[in-house]
Amino acid sequence: MAYTETDKLAINTIRTLAVDATFHANSGHPGAPMGMAPVAHVLFNKFMKFNPKNPKWLNRDRFVLSNGHGCMLQYALLHLYGYELSIDDLKAFRSVDSITPGHPEAHDTPGIEVTTGPLGQGVSNAVGLAIAQAHTAAVFNKPGYDVVDNYTYTFLGDGCLMEGVSSEACSLAGHLQLGNLIAVWDDNHITIDGDTNQAFTEDVLKRYEAYGWHTETVEDGDDDLAGIEAAIKKCQAVKNKPSLIKLRTTIGFGSKQQGTHGVHGSPLKADDIKQLKQKFGFNPEQSFAVPQEVYELCHKASAEGAAKEAEWNELFAKYAEEYKSEAADLVRRQTGDLPEGWEKNLPVYTPADDAVASRKLSEIVINKVFDAIPELIGGSADLTGSNLTRWKGAIDFQPPATGLGTYAGRYIRFGVREHGMGAILNGMAAYGTILPYGGTFLNFVSYAAGAVRLSALSQHRVIWVATHDSIGLGEDGPTHQPIETLAHFRALPNCMVWRPADGNENSAAYYVALTSKHTPSIIALSRQNLPQLEGSTLDKAAKGGYVLHEQEKADITLVSTGSEVCICIDAVKELAEKHNLKARVVSMPCFEVFDAQPKDYRLSVFPDGIPSLSVEVMSTMGWEKYTHEQFGLNRFGASGAYKDVYKKFEFTPEGITKRAVATVNFWKDVPNIRSPINRAFEQLI
Amino acid sequence: MAYTETDKLAINTIRTLAVDATFHANSGHPGAPMGMAPVAHVLFNKFMKFNPKNPKWLNRDRFVLSNGHGCMLQYALLHLYGYELSIDDLKAFRSVDSITPGHPEAHDTPGIEVTTGPLGQGVSNAVGLAIAQAHTAAVFNKPGYDVVDNYTYTFLGDGCLMEGVSSEACSLAGHLQLGNLIAVWDDNHITIDGDTNQAFTEDVLKRYEAYGWHTETVEDGDDDLAGIEAAIKKCQAVKNKPSLIKLRTTIGFGSKQQGTHGVHGSPLKADDIKQLKQKFGFNPEQSFAVPQEVYELCHKASAEGAAKEAEWNELFAKYAEEYKSEAADLVRRQTGDLPEGWEKNLPVYTPADDAVASRKLSEIVINKVFDAIPELIGGSADLTGSNLTRWKGAIDFQPPATGLGTYAGRYIRFGVREHGMGAILNGMAAYGTILPYGGTFLNFVSYAAGAVRLSALSQHRVIWVATHDSIGLGEDGPTHQPIETLAHFRALPNCMVWRPADGNENSAAYYVALTSKHTPSIIALSRQNLPQLEGSTLDKAAKGGYVLHEQEKADITLVSTGSEVCICIDAVKELAEKHNLKARVVSMPCFEVFDAQPKDYRLSVFPDGIPSLSVEVMSTMGWEKYTHEQFGLNRFGASGAYKDVYKKFEFTPEGITKRAVATVNFWKDVPNIRSPINRAFEQLI
Ligand SMILES: [Ca+2]
Ligand SMILES: [Ca+2]
Repeated sequence: MAYTETDKLAINTIRTLAVDATFHANSGHPGAPMGMAPVAHVLFNKFMKFNPKNPKWLNRDRFVLSNGHGCMLQYALLHLYGYELSIDDLKAFRSVDSITPGHPEAHDTPGIEVTTGPLGQGVSNAVGLAIAQAHTAAVFNKPGYDVVDNYTYTFLGDGCLMEGVSSEACSLAGHLQLGNLIAVWDDNHITIDGDTNQAFTEDVLKRYEAYGWHTETVEDGDDDLAGIEAAIKKCQAVKNKPSLIKLRTTIGFGSKQQGTHGVHGSPLKADDIKQLKQKFGFNPEQSFAVPQEVYELCHKASAEGAAKEAEWNELFAKYAEEYKSEAADLVRRQTGDLPEGWEKNLPVYTPADDAVASRKLSEIVINKVFDAIPELIGGSADLTGSNLTRWKGAIDFQPPATGLGTYAGRYIRFGVREHGMGAILNGMAAYGTILPYGGTFLNFVSYAAGAVRLSALSQHRVIWVATHDSIGLGEDGPTHQPIETLAHFRALPNCMVWRPADGNENSAAYYVALTSKHTPSIIALSRQNLPQLEGSTLDKAAKGGYVLHEQEKADITLVSTGSEVCICIDAVKELAEKHNLKARVVSMPCFEVFDAQPKDYRLSVFPDGIPSLSVEVMSTMGWEKYTHEQFGLNRFGASGAYKDVYKKFEFTPEGITKRAVATVNFWKDVPNIRSPINRAFEQLI
Repeated sequence: MAYTETDKLAINTIRTLAVDATFHANSGHPGAPMGMAPVAHVLFNKFMKFNPKNPKWLNRDRFVLSNGHGCMLQYALLHLYGYELSIDDLKAFRSVDSITPGHPEAHDTPGIEVTTGPLGQGVSNAVGLAIAQAHTAAVFNKPGYDVVDNYTYTFLGDGCLMEGVSSEACSLAGHLQLGNLIAVWDDNHITIDGDTNQAFTEDVLKRYEAYGWHTETVEDGDDDLAGIEAAIKKCQAVKNKPSLIKLRTTIGFGSKQQGTHGVHGSPLKADDIKQLKQKFGFNPEQSFAVPQEVYELCHKASAEGAAKEAEWNELFAKYAEEYKSEAADLVRRQTGDLPEGWEKNLPVYTPADDAVASRKLSEIVINKVFDAIPELIGGSADLTGSNLTRWKGAIDFQPPATGLGTYAGRYIRFGVREHGMGAILNGMAAYGTILPYGGTFLNFVSYAAGAVRLSALSQHRVIWVATHDSIGLGEDGPTHQPIETLAHFRALPNCMVWRPADGNENSAAYYVALTSKHTPSIIALSRQNLPQLEGSTLDKAAKGGYVLHEQEKADITLVSTGSEVCICIDAVKELAEKHNLKARVVSMPCFEVFDAQPKDYRLSVFPDGIPSLSVEVMSTMGWEKYTHEQFGLNRFGASGAYKDVYKKFEFTPEGITKRAVATVNFWKDVPNIRSPINRAFEQLI
């Protein structure tokens, strides 16, 4: 396709908008948008399939700006193509409460697919989006009905390539032969520290070929629009490999400082902007100017996109006639609602039932609901047999050519790649048709902290099946025993951390996790067996915390989670028999959910007048919010049989009793003990 | 060199010890030790330079078992070669308080260089050890005196190769041309989930070649001892590249289940052990048997190692005559003590001094002490200009061939590789001659959580220069603004988290961090300017928390850290003028250090009878331990100019005053308010 002066003008409009917005905000990154404007123009104008009037159209092509600091590129494109993002929004770039924050945030801005900025995440999300596309296509497409055939495009910089999370995700993408994934590497030879030769001299294309990717090179990414177009076409033609295009660009193209890190992270100076606008044929006195012919060029592409959506809507209407239940399922999935009645599959337990490890309880739930929730797709970071994340008879999500599964398969072998898995889960959730989960040991969810944080910030429904949740894992020892982990993720906003004590609580954890459309969950599960408790129910546990064992005129409230709740129950007997003390027991499987309950309810669980003691075999941090005293483990654990380790640290009925007695004695002189639920003022949440 | 039957016997002894120990413990991983016994034997018997009687000899070769779950391999070797690790210790494998825990822990066991098990860490530590070796050699070796020329060897499995942390570290190792680093990949085609073809089909050697590594392949790692020896020799001969040997092995060699994941993570069955011992010519009725000739073969190598150390001691004695100060410096460094008088370089401030961002205060300290502390070596994950981690005139640590620096250079360009940097810092600290630091944004220390955890567990003196420590970074927005980060690392045992409020506190943070030989530190530093406070001193701040502003008959104690302390000082005026309330102010730069002070001191800071309010612009989690009420941010931040963001969330004198008044009112009915410092019982730390 021939490129005209209008194309060049459109490219330079993107550049001047990026220059003006960063200058106006006195903050931001002009260099990447200026360097990547040509490929962005070619991609959006000639390839991308989208309708700005319906940014959520299912079969749209996905675009992910992995080098999210260059977001003025994306905001400029969204504006030019007619998304709900005005020139005033561009002027509000990087100001409080704007829809144009310093890095792209999916929940704030129409047309942004995933929240990026933390390097390496975006391209890994793109792998997740491509997995979701391949799976959705395999499940729903029918002869003559390619209802899902979109591409996932992603731009990334050197930083994204250096981050380990992208190495993990891209190695898996190669294994999975994700042909609809096309990545463009902004090879500008510049990082924040200066020239990439200071720290990044590997042969990137060779590495990606080693992963099983197809690669292309465009030597002149500043001017060779036809070359860019040809490279993308070649990548589209390769159906069984993801593709990486190495695009040589000049960072800050047009600036007097182009090609240096001086244009990376600071606005251009006024005189530089002046010369740049003159060079590009813009009025140097005008800011945020968009020539009419540029709008027209972009809107034409948008209109074509809208027409494609209309065409697709027709196709889908016919599909819905022929494949009624599939169509209904696909429509339902996009609402985030689960199939009606799915929750009837959740198991309910009585104290007569066997003691079972909560990781096993989790496996039972997965086995019971996988049929009822077809969008549930998950896997493990190479700990399937330990995490118990795979249901009986599951088919693996694998390229058919491997003979190991199909793209319609719902069980993913992530490999030993926790961080990559976390970022991929985010991408899968963002696609809109999948409810993803991933398994690893609780301790190694920390490897994925960067991705979990973005699950929470971006409001993705992602579930971590986090087994081996304490020193109770025993022999593997302190390298594998979480201490700080629950505190870490409890402190993360919009992240539910569950630690169920038995079967009913585990069903509650899954119920809330699966139905919370905008919140990720980490379900911490034991390696060791736990008895089914008297007094637990799904409904009570779904409140996050509840009175498991009530007692009139109690001397103390014991509060606990997971595997320590049953030890507290034993301590109640010991306290009564040996110390004539009455104890009530609160089980607290999820702080975040409990905090959302009305205050009277919370006060009924932690009433005034009674001292309270928390019991949890890890950091006490955070428990002071609910209890007067805390029994925990503010040190690393130990390697040994789990019962020996619990004994070493006194997590026994006797050890709890000792501390409960100390608590009662310590607080007996205080009249009208206040429940910590009472607070002087409300928190900012 | 010819291999005899005794070599085979030694190899099979390693295998049977691993089989017996895991069987005896009823837990553990026999497969990897059995598969890697041949290469371990060749390496330890023919190559490794070490003296078991002095495991800390400076110029020993370093060995790192990156696939730490195979630690019975290492424990068996340590025993056979005469380290302080007895057969009884092997029998105590994986039991409480043994020196043979489920994964190797450096501080527990003589001869273990670094704590491994969390996958990908060990090989990345090895990169750090090799950097330390290259640097120490460049600084101390003289013509005729190669006082430091050791190799670093590491074994790793598929899991280590899949983890992103190793991708980061190994890409940098290639760039740095670390010729003395030799890695052996146990290519056994097996992971926990089964065959590696399920998730790991990349071309590993091609990837490592892309990183700039030399590669070798040994097709028969089970039997071809000469081939293994030849491969290691070839790698030794390549002086300007790290090397990776692909070693095809059979996991669980000798077991009836060899070559399957059935031997990966569970002990062998009794009948399997019987047939294996018979096949290997061992008495099937005996356990933990070591043939005398095996001891002799191994002890001979150890004696040769001891002789090499004796030779080296002579060399070093001569070196000490000729290069007196260098020798003294090298000896001192290994004690962990800093050069006498170094602390005189720490800057002291008065309120008359300029307001300065604490990241800038950190830069000032680095500039003042780099000369006095020659072992201080650091860098940044590609944020040098933002972290301000580089002193004026620093020389980069680079391969001389690049022309960008030398191996004697002390500034490291880590690239955008936070997790790799963290693991490399651990390896550098473990070498014994270096005090390493690394810079990134506080929010991205979380990317390195897996490595930071091991710094703490392994007691490495590692310093994180963690700038842009709050919503105060402003425009970059919520993707970059830490909320949960301080809580996370405060909950991690043996990890100091500092957040200095001004210049004197920053000097205190560095003083304690640099002199704490067995504890890592994270120093959280502001992007924005902070005034020099009235009342701060290095000595007071070095207690972790202190009364910055005292007040007779105070109505409230305000407690804060970092950039919020000065806002609290302003709130004191506001409280006095508008509400007639007297407030004292406590500055609390480091929880961990404060907690270690005597109780009366802590009570003098948080006395009974006065309600207290904490003020910190992130998660309130953890503050309930010290204060009655908490003002924080239990949600994500916002993108905007930092003053606008602070205002949005009411972190202003007015916002603090409002909550202080509420606190005073809420607590005024409670007689004899107890300080939260009073506790019913002591914590397990
Ligand atoms: Ca770049
Ligand atoms: Ca393996």
